[in-house]
Amino acid sequence: MRPTRDACRVEMFYHLSIDTNTKDLFTMNDQNGYDVEDLHVGMSATVAKTITEADILLFSAVSTDVNAIHLNEEYAASTPFKGRIAHGMLSASLISAVLANRLPGPGTIYLAQDLKFTAPVRPGDTVHATVTVLELGDKGRVTLQTTCTVKGVTVIDGQAQVKIGSSARRAASRQG
Amino acid sequence: MRPTRDACRVEMFYHLSIDTNTKDLFTMNDQNGYDVEDLHVGMSATVAKTITEADILLFSAVSTDVNAIHLNEEYAASTPFKGRIAHGMLSASLISAVLANRLPGPGTIYLAQDLKFTAPVRPGDTVHATVTVLELGDKGRVTLQTTCTVKGVTVIDGQAQVKIGSSARRAASRQG
Repeated sequence: MRPTRDACRVEMFYHLSIDTNTKDLFTMNDQNGYDVEDLHVGMSATVAKTITEADILLFSAVSTDVNAIHLNEEYAASTPFKGRIAHGMLSASLISAVLANRLPGPGTIYLAQDLKFTAPVRPGDTVHATVTVLELGDKGRVTLQTTCTVKGVTVIDGQAQVKIGSSARRAASRQG
Repeated sequence: MRPTRDACRVEMFYHLSIDTNTKDLFTMNDQNGYDVEDLHVGMSATVAKTITEADILLFSAVSTDVNAIHLNEEYAASTPFKGRIAHGMLSASLISAVLANRLPGPGTIYLAQDLKFTAPVRPGDTVHATVTVLELGDKGRVTLQTTCTVKGVTVIDGQAQVKIGSSARRAASRQG
């Protein structure tokens, strides 16, 4: 017997991450992203990535942010950070990834993001970016809590506003 | 005759960017960044960068945000965007660059950033990221307006909070 939709939701909340094997039980959009009908307050998803030397180098190139605190160990060691730190926006980019790849997933339009950088991220740290649905607004607008942690310590906190599709609206436009 | 400090400031406002040749007239910190004593409300700086295919590819790798809207032209052409767009956080990373490289410049600690993504950025677009000092707070805290534009159209709007050093505090700690 296939698990019920509600049973899957309970499972998801328990793990605080989305088991992609259960996705076919939801309506989902054509790109396997969640529609507004699929979302409930409290749903959550996480991605984690180790921030390597290569990430810091590539992010410096892409952003043109070549601050010595990211690239010069001798200088960085002389600051209160006592060594190089990753770009804040590099860790923040993982929030964009979890929104785009997991929850709400493909099809999500990014409207706004606020970020508080609360602790440094160092080369070799593994950043866990977690998004949690806070509020479902009108016209597919969704507010999510967005948090990045390293070993359980919050390094970025904030909220995202996104816009997502509606399976009901798609069905109506197909019939109309 | 060397131009006065105020004359340089007027020149800077006129160009809406900082002429690094005038920097030696200011106190600056050891890394050539501005101290809180150097800043005035209205000071502004810009960096501009063309967002290339390579940037989008590298940002996808670093962020793990591999949304089809960034990488799959066939899919992206079928969406309201009518083609691929750059990651919002990729353009936002230029704000980090102008804060870190120009104003306040090296030594700046990034505390917070809010972002509204108001229009898409496409491969080949040149993004101009401008920061403008809005408010000087206590203990070296500075609020800046942060805006990214493409051909004069705002693509990102928001504010940054940063913390910077003080030449007076440094002098006192050297004497103390």
